[in-house]
Amino acid sequence: MKLGPGIARTLLPKGFFASGVNSGVRKYRPDIGLIISDTDMVAAGVFTTNEAKAAPILWCQNLVPSKKIRAVLTNSGQANAATGALGIENNLKMVKACAEVIKCAPEQILVASTGVIGVQLSLDLLVKSLPELAARVTDTAENFANAILTTDLVPKTVSTTLELSTGTVTVTGIAKGSGMIHPNMATMLGYILTDAQIDEKLAHGFLKTAVDKSFNMVSVDGDTATNDCAFLLANGASGVNLNNPADCEIFQNTVTLICQELARAIARDGEGATKLIEVNIFNGQNTELSKKAARGLTMSPLFKCAIHGEDPNWGRILARLGAEGVPAASLNKMNLKLQGELIFQDGAPAVFDRDKLRSLLRSDTVLVDVDLKESSSAAVVKAWGCDFSKKYVEINAEYST
Amino acid sequence: MKLGPGIARTLLPKGFFASGVNSGVRKYRPDIGLIISDTDMVAAGVFTTNEAKAAPILWCQNLVPSKKIRAVLTNSGQANAATGALGIENNLKMVKACAEVIKCAPEQILVASTGVIGVQLSLDLLVKSLPELAARVTDTAENFANAILTTDLVPKTVSTTLELSTGTVTVTGIAKGSGMIHPNMATMLGYILTDAQIDEKLAHGFLKTAVDKSFNMVSVDGDTATNDCAFLLANGASGVNLNNPADCEIFQNTVTLICQELARAIARDGEGATKLIEVNIFNGQNTELSKKAARGLTMSPLFKCAIHGEDPNWGRILARLGAEGVPAASLNKMNLKLQGELIFQDGAPAVFDRDKLRSLLRSDTVLVDVDLKESSSAAVVKAWGCDFSKKYVEINAEYST
Repeated sequence: MKLGPGIARTLLPKGFFASGVNSGVRKYRPDIGLIISDTDMVAAGVFTTNEAKAAPILWCQNLVPSKKIRAVLTNSGQANAATGALGIENNLKMVKACAEVIKCAPEQILVASTGVIGVQLSLDLLVKSLPELAARVTDTAENFANAILTTDLVPKTVSTTLELSTGTVTVTGIAKGSGMIHPNMATMLGYILTDAQIDEKLAHGFLKTAVDKSFNMVSVDGDTATNDCAFLLANGASGVNLNNPADCEIFQNTVTLICQELARAIARDGEGATKLIEVNIFNGQNTELSKKAARGLTMSPLFKCAIHGEDPNWGRILARLGAEGVPAASLNKMNLKLQGELIFQDGAPAVFDRDKLRSLLRSDTVLVDVDLKESSSAAVVKAWGCDFSKKYVEINAEYST
Repeated sequence: MKLGPGIARTLLPKGFFASGVNSGVRKYRPDIGLIISDTDMVAAGVFTTNEAKAAPILWCQNLVPSKKIRAVLTNSGQANAATGALGIENNLKMVKACAEVIKCAPEQILVASTGVIGVQLSLDLLVKSLPELAARVTDTAENFANAILTTDLVPKTVSTTLELSTGTVTVTGIAKGSGMIHPNMATMLGYILTDAQIDEKLAHGFLKTAVDKSFNMVSVDGDTATNDCAFLLANGASGVNLNNPADCEIFQNTVTLICQELARAIARDGEGATKLIEVNIFNGQNTELSKKAARGLTMSPLFKCAIHGEDPNWGRILARLGAEGVPAASLNKMNLKLQGELIFQDGAPAVFDRDKLRSLLRSDTVLVDVDLKESSSAAVVKAWGCDFSKKYVEINAEYST
């Protein structure tokens, strides 16, 4: 199953509306966004495992799973993390102000914040922007997707429709993430919206399964942020209920594919990245070790620099796999492909055309296929990352505090 | 206890000789080195935990602890890692050739290799250089320390004499390491030489204790190499036996300090580094978590970039500590100092003079003091790292395969 080529990227499911405006926190760019539904929504969420959780994370953790969420508010530029009691208070004030504007209870509003850590919210500016934000909602995700960006270069949205046994539903994914990307159990900011009818428990299961195979397998720099979160919001506006196993399977696959597409987009837009790296681990002994190895590889600064230099330095791949605990017995029989070219075979360097490989590495997408030959499972463990460039250093040496 | 300022850095202990010559593997620089003792030595070793162990590591693991080591041979430029059965065979051939030249059994020679992974040794060149290498030994560490370097900019040696109850002994440390530095249970290449009389068990204990507080707490890039190892070699030439607890304590402290001095030197000479970062964690709940947190911080690309930019971005410090599992309760009461300036106090941002701090951050050494306030232990957990620069990317995008 693949998402079709003709995806309407910014289409929202029925009954969803979104907006993004500039509140004045940032000079020109939109910096506050709203997703809102006509009716109450079922909402599931997964959150960062970082012990330094931002105020909005603490707020949302208490609300989901829920069946009466009405909106998600998101501001960019200020993460409201490491802001102490005042940060929690400011988050609540912003939520209450938003609840007044959109006429619901504060507990019906989820919040995500992203930006600099340790800075208090510019509450006055944010609150003042809320009426305009609510007034400007449209039926596309575009403005919202732009408003939640920080060092991202491009907005990240993907949308598709599904034919289920009792009708058609739409699923739309929106994400942001560019630096401090190494989610654990959750993600940067991810929003999966659907007009299907789902209960909270099912919603949480769909989200958790998809996130574990997507956002939790993407790393830009190995740093786990304080504000990572992903939501699945279902407003039921399609009238299509997900109540048979076949439909659930189609739906789960779609949510997973959408999250993987967003994960890929996040890695490709990693700070300073010039290349997306996609790692596939085949036939590992156990999934956890394969995941660790795949993620480890996407985190290796040496490997990331080699890919940046379009250098087929497979020694660094092997070294990292070994460091992650892939047993010597596997390393001694494994195969390794870079851009489909076999460069390490049966545990020993293979003869390969270096010039050809170098030229294949000029691509903006680099595929690493590791076959550990320890099993013959059909399941592939996938992870995504990006190369390490001077630009990454530049961005992060100068990102203001 | 501190090492004195007047350390004769390249002095070897009694009965030790060392050399380094160019074998032709590298164009101009010395690329093969030898440490040799007049008499049999007690030798202890600790090795990389990477599953992808290089041929020389596999060789040495079978030899130590030993009481009859005569020499350590080290080549740079070719790591002899991921080289399969031929790599193991080449290692043995090199050892046998060396044993013939210096007239001992092959099992009396330890080997360390460092350089590009996946390349077979240039055996002919290396073997041909052995007679000259053996002929050129002197009583200083200088040529050896130079011959083992790869991307290192400076050789790393430190030497001191100790007054023990029954006489004077000398301890000399030599190390190399610049990239792929994130040792686990062992190190890049480290050699601790002494003319004290010690048995193998004691030697192993001294080495292990020192390495855990030094080489195992230094990270340049989070990548654990295939060739990491550290040796303690004791030839007893001083006639001074380490057999009372007071002497053992002095000796242990010295070995630890020497290893820490070398660890600092390695971090400072990290690939592309412009600054040494020293992290101190005070009053943690448990040492393992404090170690994890300290090491995590020295590995955070975001924090390393901020330090490179001389930017007091404490939010990234907090985020990383939280990501490493420092509990929210500690984060909510901790103090944080950068260059001695208090920037986060009792779990909240402190008021500090940003201009003053920025100017303090221009130093080539950056101190991070974290007080978790969970205990009142005198023990400080220390870790060392370096900043992340464009130069790191340049070096590692272009390091040849």
